[in-house]
Amino acid sequence: MSEVRFGIIGFGNMGSSHAESIYRGKVKNGKLVGVCDINEDKLKRSRELYPDVTCYSSHHDMLKNKDIDAIIVATPHYDHPSIAIDALKANKHVLIEKPAGVYTKAVREMNEVSKKTDKVFAIMYNQRTDPYYSKVKELIDDGELGEIRRINWIITDWYRPQSYYNSGGWRATWAGEGGGVLLNQDPHQLDLWQWICGMPTRIRAFCQFGKMHDIEVEDDVTAYMEYANGATGVFVTSTSDAPGTNRFEISGDRGKIVVENRKITFWRLRVSEREFNATFTGGFGNPECWKCEIDVKPNELQQHVAILTNLVEAILDGKELIAPGVEGIRGLTISNAMHLSAWIDDWVNLPIDEDLYYDMLQDKIKNSVVSKDNKDVVLDVKGTF
Amino acid sequence: MSEVRFGIIGFGNMGSSHAESIYRGKVKNGKLVGVCDINEDKLKRSRELYPDVTCYSSHHDMLKNKDIDAIIVATPHYDHPSIAIDALKANKHVLIEKPAGVYTKAVREMNEVSKKTDKVFAIMYNQRTDPYYSKVKELIDDGELGEIRRINWIITDWYRPQSYYNSGGWRATWAGEGGGVLLNQDPHQLDLWQWICGMPTRIRAFCQFGKMHDIEVEDDVTAYMEYANGATGVFVTSTSDAPGTNRFEISGDRGKIVVENRKITFWRLRVSEREFNATFTGGFGNPECWKCEIDVKPNELQQHVAILTNLVEAILDGKELIAPGVEGIRGLTISNAMHLSAWIDDWVNLPIDEDLYYDMLQDKIKNSVVSKDNKDVVLDVKGTF
Repeated sequence: MSEVRFGIIGFGNMGSSHAESIYRGKVKNGKLVGVCDINEDKLKRSRELYPDVTCYSSHHDMLKNKDIDAIIVATPHYDHPSIAIDALKANKHVLIEKPAGVYTKAVREMNEVSKKTDKVFAIMYNQRTDPYYSKVKELIDDGELGEIRRINWIITDWYRPQSYYNSGGWRATWAGEGGGVLLNQDPHQLDLWQWICGMPTRIRAFCQFGKMHDIEVEDDVTAYMEYANGATGVFVTSTSDAPGTNRFEISGDRGKIVVENRKITFWRLRVSEREFNATFTGGFGNPECWKCEIDVKPNELQQHVAILTNLVEAILDGKELIAPGVEGIRGLTISNAMHLSAWIDDWVNLPIDEDLYYDMLQDKIKNSVVSKDNKDVVLDVKGTF
Repeated sequence: MSEVRFGIIGFGNMGSSHAESIYRGKVKNGKLVGVCDINEDKLKRSRELYPDVTCYSSHHDMLKNKDIDAIIVATPHYDHPSIAIDALKANKHVLIEKPAGVYTKAVREMNEVSKKTDKVFAIMYNQRTDPYYSKVKELIDDGELGEIRRINWIITDWYRPQSYYNSGGWRATWAGEGGGVLLNQDPHQLDLWQWICGMPTRIRAFCQFGKMHDIEVEDDVTAYMEYANGATGVFVTSTSDAPGTNRFEISGDRGKIVVENRKITFWRLRVSEREFNATFTGGFGNPECWKCEIDVKPNELQQHVAILTNLVEAILDGKELIAPGVEGIRGLTISNAMHLSAWIDDWVNLPIDEDLYYDMLQDKIKNSVVSKDNKDVVLDVKGTF
């Protein structure tokens, strides 16, 4: 096997972007052979762009094609787990778009299926290839920051005007997306959060639903988290701050790392805070600290193309995945916990009560009063991930 | 009356600092005539430094002296209200150190007494004279930022090693200070918070008590607040972060202001976010934004000397106070609400249940197991406010 033949399910914003990358040869040893969408207009567009690529209106039909090795699932969020399960069971390698799903119950089922196959299962956590975040992870994994004590991510630069929400009937509805900024914009950050700092033990979150937009889901979230070692975290996100902020601060026993404005600053303590605290006798005083500007080299491949290329290499050469699909449940668990905490107005311990989450989500869907024109516009997503 | 004759009650860190400023002529038309402390060693030190200043071991005796016009109350926090009441009733002008007290119940009583006198009553909120914060207040009061939507203050640069807490038996105890970082380090920030952004309507706070120090009170706090207009706020503070952060971000309908590293940056929207949101049709897009670096001119007088001079001018010339004493209750209300929320592990609506707070605080004092050597060291506070 010298190349991976791709079928893409869902030819919307992301699906069409991945199709373009593969078709135009940006993914080494990757070839686009099929596109599937339930919307005939979208298939028409695919035929115009890629005349030699087969179109399908049913993913079941596509999965029957033995000339397709790998499936990219780029449908609306709800369908990721069920389609991924279909594809895995059809003996395909699978890459799912983020989020892994809308609720962890379904994602857990998908993970179980994937563990029973020998197929490669990946998730489009392209931000793990961002050289800034991977550098921070490296510093923390290597112990440079010491034990983590405090995390603070203000990620409010997801500005979306009302016209964005009006561009698709499924957008920002409980039935269509299962949430707002947490499900659509933040899956990468929630993954990076747990990838770099690990999973919290409990969460108390405050979601504001349709605060600044005519939508039923959350467009503003503040969440407080606690970790087993006593560390705390604050995650603040919104789609109505203009201009927003993207500032990720992690404090540890050996100092502080801040990622902001495409720059990593590491305030490095000469001796650990614990040692200074125990030995300094002067009353007022601070441990010696060096302000270090961390050099970050751009990766050769980044973002979506890097993940797609990694997938091809994993399939062809057994290379380790940057973002294994089974890890998609972690960020989603944090996201679900934030919703649940806001809904029950109380603490949520992790792992969450998945049945309760599922039932409450069904209630939201059932009680939704949203009726939008179901227009469905493919937006240009360049620069939005 | 051409000068104000001061008596200082409490010759500890702050009292001795104010004495020095007044005695050395830094406060125009201010004169130091009396110092009071219950600790004879401290009075001895005062006699050595200021041989012509009368010493008192009882504030009641000092208040009988008709040659004293104004009293500075710089005792431990608990005694601020009761001594201020004594002083006001003795017909003295009064300046209290921050915080106004430990619980709002006593502070409310002090405020009631002050309203019945014609004496000037001020509080040492010296940070209101800081040119950066007063500039931000001016921008917001003038409507430049529009309606406030989000506030985020990470004020963790209050690092204190264990030796600090060991320097006085009263420090960081429920009986001695009535709290930790909220009562000792943060009163200025909590005042600036409400001075600039107003009072929240409810608070959900998470305090960690003796997390990184051998103390019984809080050394780590994360608090979430909501405002009547839907605005939200996060206040994060600690005495164990090294190096800490002092970053104050306020977002509004017309952009965002960040105060950090002695710099104000104002991201100013050309049209308001609300207008852009309502009129932009392009799906992805952001309102035009200008990054403005705000010029800040240092005030002629700053910090403690500015507040002391303002008090003298208020007494002699009827000048408006920068920090009226009755406003001390506001920041303390936020502080008490944070404690209360952590204690009851639930929301606290403002105004708080003052009786509940008082009762719970008494329980903390009663159940305290702290027994420290009661050594009492005067630390050099230069650069710590």
